[in-house]
Amino acid sequence: MRVDERKANELRPTTIETDYVKHPEGSVLISVGDTKVICNASVEDRVPPFMRGQGKGWITAEYAMLPRATEQRNIRESSKGKVSGRTMEIQRLIGRSLRAVVDLDKIGERTVWVDCDVIQADGGTRTASITGAFVAVVLAFGKLIERKVLKELPIKNYLAATSVGVLANEGEVLDLCYQEDSKAEVDMNIIMTGDGEFVELQGTGEESTFSMKQLQQMLELGQDGIQELFEIQKTAIGELANHIDKKINAEPAEEAQ
Amino acid sequence: MRVDERKANELRPTTIETDYVKHPEGSVLISVGDTKVICNASVEDRVPPFMRGQGKGWITAEYAMLPRATEQRNIRESSKGKVSGRTMEIQRLIGRSLRAVVDLDKIGERTVWVDCDVIQADGGTRTASITGAFVAVVLAFGKLIERKVLKELPIKNYLAATSVGVLANEGEVLDLCYQEDSKAEVDMNIIMTGDGEFVELQGTGEESTFSMKQLQQMLELGQDGIQELFEIQKTAIGELANHIDKKINAEPAEEAQ
Amino acid sequence: MRVDERKANELRPTTIETDYVKHPEGSVLISVGDTKVICNASVEDRVPPFMRGQGKGWITAEYAMLPRATEQRNIRESSKGKVSGRTMEIQRLIGRSLRAVVDLDKIGERTVWVDCDVIQADGGTRTASITGAFVAVVLAFGKLIERKVLKELPIKNYLAATSVGVLANEGEVLDLCYQEDSKAEVDMNIIMTGDGEFVELQGTGEESTFSMKQLQQMLELGQDGIQELFEIQKTAIGELANHIDKKINAEPAEEAQ
Amino acid sequence: MRVDERKANELRPTTIETDYVKHPEGSVLISVGDTKVICNASVEDRVPPFMRGQGKGWITAEYAMLPRATEQRNIRESSKGKVSGRTMEIQRLIGRSLRAVVDLDKIGERTVWVDCDVIQADGGTRTASITGAFVAVVLAFGKLIERKVLKELPIKNYLAATSVGVLANEGEVLDLCYQEDSKAEVDMNIIMTGDGEFVELQGTGEESTFSMKQLQQMLELGQDGIQELFEIQKTAIGELANHIDKKINAEPAEEAQ
Amino acid sequence: MRVDERKANELRPTTIETDYVKHPEGSVLISVGDTKVICNASVEDRVPPFMRGQGKGWITAEYAMLPRATEQRNIRESSKGKVSGRTMEIQRLIGRSLRAVVDLDKIGERTVWVDCDVIQADGGTRTASITGAFVAVVLAFGKLIERKVLKELPIKNYLAATSVGVLANEGEVLDLCYQEDSKAEVDMNIIMTGDGEFVELQGTGEESTFSMKQLQQMLELGQDGIQELFEIQKTAIGELANHIDKKINAEPAEEAQ
Amino acid sequence: MRVDERKANELRPTTIETDYVKHPEGSVLISVGDTKVICNASVEDRVPPFMRGQGKGWITAEYAMLPRATEQRNIRESSKGKVSGRTMEIQRLIGRSLRAVVDLDKIGERTVWVDCDVIQADGGTRTASITGAFVAVVLAFGKLIERKVLKELPIKNYLAATSVGVLANEGEVLDLCYQEDSKAEVDMNIIMTGDGEFVELQGTGEESTFSMKQLQQMLELGQDGIQELFEIQKTAIGELANHIDKKINAEPAEEAQ
Repeated sequence: MRVDERKANELRPTTIETDYVKHPEGSVLISVGDTKVICNASVEDRVPPFMRGQGKGWITAEYAMLPRATEQRNIRESSKGKVSGRTMEIQRLIGRSLRAVVDLDKIGERTVWVDCDVIQADGGTRTASITGAFVAVVLAFGKLIERKVLKELPIKNYLAATSVGVLANEGEVLDLCYQEDSKAEVDMNIIMTGDGEFVELQGTGEESTFSMKQLQQMLELGQDGIQELFEIQKTAIGELANHIDKKINAEPAEEAQ
Repeated sequence: MRVDERKANELRPTTIETDYVKHPEGSVLISVGDTKVICNASVEDRVPPFMRGQGKGWITAEYAMLPRATEQRNIRESSKGKVSGRTMEIQRLIGRSLRAVVDLDKIGERTVWVDCDVIQADGGTRTASITGAFVAVVLAFGKLIERKVLKELPIKNYLAATSVGVLANEGEVLDLCYQEDSKAEVDMNIIMTGDGEFVELQGTGEESTFSMKQLQQMLELGQDGIQELFEIQKTAIGELANHIDKKINAEPAEEAQ
Repeated sequence: MRVDERKANELRPTTIETDYVKHPEGSVLISVGDTKVICNASVEDRVPPFMRGQGKGWITAEYAMLPRATEQRNIRESSKGKVSGRTMEIQRLIGRSLRAVVDLDKIGERTVWVDCDVIQADGGTRTASITGAFVAVVLAFGKLIERKVLKELPIKNYLAATSVGVLANEGEVLDLCYQEDSKAEVDMNIIMTGDGEFVELQGTGEESTFSMKQLQQMLELGQDGIQELFEIQKTAIGELANHIDKKINAEPAEEAQ
Repeated sequence: MRVDERKANELRPTTIETDYVKHPEGSVLISVGDTKVICNASVEDRVPPFMRGQGKGWITAEYAMLPRATEQRNIRESSKGKVSGRTMEIQRLIGRSLRAVVDLDKIGERTVWVDCDVIQADGGTRTASITGAFVAVVLAFGKLIERKVLKELPIKNYLAATSVGVLANEGEVLDLCYQEDSKAEVDMNIIMTGDGEFVELQGTGEESTFSMKQLQQMLELGQDGIQELFEIQKTAIGELANHIDKKINAEPAEEAQ
Repeated sequence: MRVDERKANELRPTTIETDYVKHPEGSVLISVGDTKVICNASVEDRVPPFMRGQGKGWITAEYAMLPRATEQRNIRESSKGKVSGRTMEIQRLIGRSLRAVVDLDKIGERTVWVDCDVIQADGGTRTASITGAFVAVVLAFGKLIERKVLKELPIKNYLAATSVGVLANEGEVLDLCYQEDSKAEVDMNIIMTGDGEFVELQGTGEESTFSMKQLQQMLELGQDGIQELFEIQKTAIGELANHIDKKINAEPAEEAQ
Repeated sequence: MRVDERKANELRPTTIETDYVKHPEGSVLISVGDTKVICNASVEDRVPPFMRGQGKGWITAEYAMLPRATEQRNIRESSKGKVSGRTMEIQRLIGRSLRAVVDLDKIGERTVWVDCDVIQADGGTRTASITGAFVAVVLAFGKLIERKVLKELPIKNYLAATSVGVLANEGEVLDLCYQEDSKAEVDMNIIMTGDGEFVELQGTGEESTFSMKQLQQMLELGQDGIQELFEIQKTAIGELANHIDKKINAEPAEEAQ
């Protein structure tokens, strides 16, 4: 039995509240158990210098935690005058993952800034950020369609993420809360698309290792958990889900030509 | 008639939601119209080096905005690697104001960190931060009393803040929203205690000036508005208001001895 | 009786030495008692990026203290690698105040950089900086008229500043020296124009508060003190004072049309 | 056929030159094809503040490239005044990996600093760094045994790393050179111990994805390649390999008791 | 004939005004032609960490220019967030030079901070800083003797500096003003002690070179010029010169024992 | 007898290995005794902003040490977030020296970046860097001639550097190793061109001084040592030496016209 009485393959209660903040083109508050992240997607009408003149867009992400999102207060990175290695790793991961499902060629010379701000942390903040960010980005593109800036949703597939790990007593488990995460022997983040392909896989045995068999078991747990997240995302984006589904179904046909 | 149909002496709808985030000793979400600020008060069991060994405590504040709290996305201060002059001014103001009503001699060698994070901005973020921060600090001290760390509430009086200004057509008005603030000829922040004394007064005629008469008019509007904020604070802190009221009533007697 | 035997409404001996440094367009050494500030105004033939193409100019200020301007040596801000919150507050205040009396529309796309470097500090460095900076700016514009770059003085009115405060024993006093300032219950900076209007008002009760009555008393002291400063400024700028006086007298007529 | 005529499962020629620089306790130059990294291990007789008093040690790594290690010259991170996200990710990965095989409890309150400086880059610099760093660390501990500071080698197992990936035409391949890496659809770093367990797995489909089947194929290539690297490491550390082998063989027995 | 009508071996008019600023233990304004530098010496009752417990003192120097000390305004180093290479070179040079004539063993565990702030620059600011700094340091030690902190002047000898150079038309010249310096083929700074020994010699042929013969000629000019500076220093330090002279005369005798 | 049994006028064994790293236009590893520096010259097809449009080129240098190039590990400057004063001094010196012998008018609007990275330090790293950098720059220009970018070698003369010093017992010596350097009373860096002219002369008596006679003796040792370095450079650049020799011989004739 896990610390919060979940089964090994059970996600924490997960909700996605849309239009959370009024200014951004897309804005959600994702709650995965007690982990809460505001994901805002902002569209800027230009791209970074290294991409100018190519007619395509860019997506980049930033991640931060409020100082007291955690049990102990953390010093603000703006006060320290620099962004930590952990933060950089996470924001690079979020940006890279989103770029795997967004059709950058179809958004014109625009940059989508995705800001993931953790207001309360209880493990899995980076995977919650990715799952929420996907929804914020879809909503932002939906806004651009409404404003007649875009004609169709430049999204190639769904994208969601979760964590899996190995605990000393419980074995392989899905969606670790902070208390589990801090004592896990292995911690793995899995990011997948709607068709069951991997976008990113990051498994770490901090001062420990894991076998091929454990890896397989974790991948299975992750795959199942992410399927549930896709359903929650679909509910959150509402009618825009049809656009994505239509696209996914159309694609093989296109490729077959 | 003002842009949002308020009267000159009318505050925006203001609410204070307590226990907003679970980890901090005190946590509120204050909403003043569309301005929303998370105010977290964290208690640390030590003071900065310059105060050690004096047996008294310290309160300090930090302020930030989510990048997309505003109409246009702002670059994160952690990415810029430094805190802006505006941010520094605001966090110094919040800390200074709180220190005027907290009895630092009665909290032991502890630091109260107050984090004001604006998640949505529509003018008056610094005054909303002060009004909310006061409640977060009271709640944090309440928690320390529960935990038997403190015996009584080290609060000398209520503290709240609002803005007043002069508009070209409307004249002197209370509690400017962003649209008003951006075109105001004069902008003044007023911070007061429960007994009607000023803690801080900051009036600025950006590329303009103001007369003694306009000043008087603004001060009156501010005083009345702040009285309303005290009522909202009292409701938010609940039973702890009794502690403060008892103290305020007791003080003259003490001083009279 | 005050620590330096002044009356409550008495300014310290104040002098303004012009053409103090040879390179700047305008340069003064202002001495207010033992507070000495070099104020240099430099004219650059371009404006910051956010103002380009509007045909108007900009004024910005920087403020610093020599490390040993004070009783204890301070670490240089260049060594610390960042400008303190206090410095930022002061330089923003100086710039904002000057912009209230300079007609930015009449100086073309030029930036006036005002550098206020305190070589000896004894309280009131920010108000001395403003009073001196005004003269440096007028002299710089005078130089531009000489060089046929400008036709008339783009100055709308006089500008000077002083501090007032409340001392435990002496009550309300004008122009606090450092020894007074460090023990004052209330400290207020007042910045006014030649016609008696306020440009900026910043009153702070550090760990204390002040009443409406004290405020009124401080404002009166400040108004009278600033009138004396205007006379010292007029002497310093000499013949250029006529330009300003002519303008002030002409304005109501213009507005009356 | 691959760009450098290797087979899909063929490592580039790999050599490890020991005692490359004279001052460090352990120093190697590892060459993996044209990728050359100096790995220096330095032993310091204290641990970082957060670990003091626990009687155990710490290993941390830093990674850098000479500005012209690459085809295009890169700006030095010291000139930019900050370490990039990529560098932070890599040095965190190297440190974490080494900590998985070093017995920190057996090295006393000492820190091992591992510096991986790439003098020539042709893909796979982070995995070459790990493979070389392991040897440098073993040599440094060997030196401490010689100096009678340690009694036995505090190494639990071998550690090596390589990259695998998916190329559009060649499919899954082992040990990507830069030209392959820059066009790979999937790039995965695999870090393993001598007993075939994973320490870390990082697979990324930059703007692409990968299937479970491709993952399995990459894992197999990686496992085989790393076995070859262990042999090269054994030759480099010479007699010290016996210490490690003895330990690995002894361990199950110990655990069986 | 030189640009300012001096002879090749003629110093610019040089004056040293003592007690220029009131707070520092030693303070002078040195003027070498139009170059003006405030040199303040501050005594702190502790040494940097690397020198603690050795019973000896330390001298360190900082150098800066007011932004408009020069013809063109320079950006403040505090705004840039870092000290330039030029500034670092100069402040290291000033500190090193002073340490050659101060008997660090005789000042106890104290640090002398020497701040050289150029308020007006016309060439030779670093050599003027050294010549002025020596006087400020002597005055500061004089103050410590007055306060009974020190018994005798811990100064081993006089110290002064000047520049020499080679001009295309004028050949070798002493004490270059800015206009000369900016077109000089060779620029050399010479720092000497009262007994004619070199402390530091820095000759640079920026995009040019110089012969042994030119070197000899420059050294002679420098030696003669520095003798004149010693006289000006003696006048500035007044009665304290006797202490130094006595020491210089006593030393050979001591060493002879 | 010196610590490493050399005679006073004896250089350490010095070698220059060319084409050390494959990417740079010019690359050498210079070894001067146990001091080893990688010198890479990179050619960029543009100049810094302040030089644009003049049709001439620029040379700039950067210098760094691997953290464990020295007996004690040094903190990386990228981790500290700033370049030390010592590093800045050295890289400015290297750049300035190279500019004295490179004909910037003949390289077009190009920048040559010279990176000197010390991988092992044993005294004299800055002079070894200059001697090696000259060869790297010549090789880089040789490559540009091969690629038909330049027609002739834009080198006016040879350039090499060494150190000389005064030791308490040994007197004046050439080419100090670290052990000598750390106890030397005087340390002087001499940089000369092939025709025996000085480019730069930097003599320092750290907490000591030196006489005119000692200076002369050091200059003679330096001149002789540098002649030997020119021979080693000629061997390293091979056929390109003819270009330089031809130019040197041609020049007087040109000037004689």
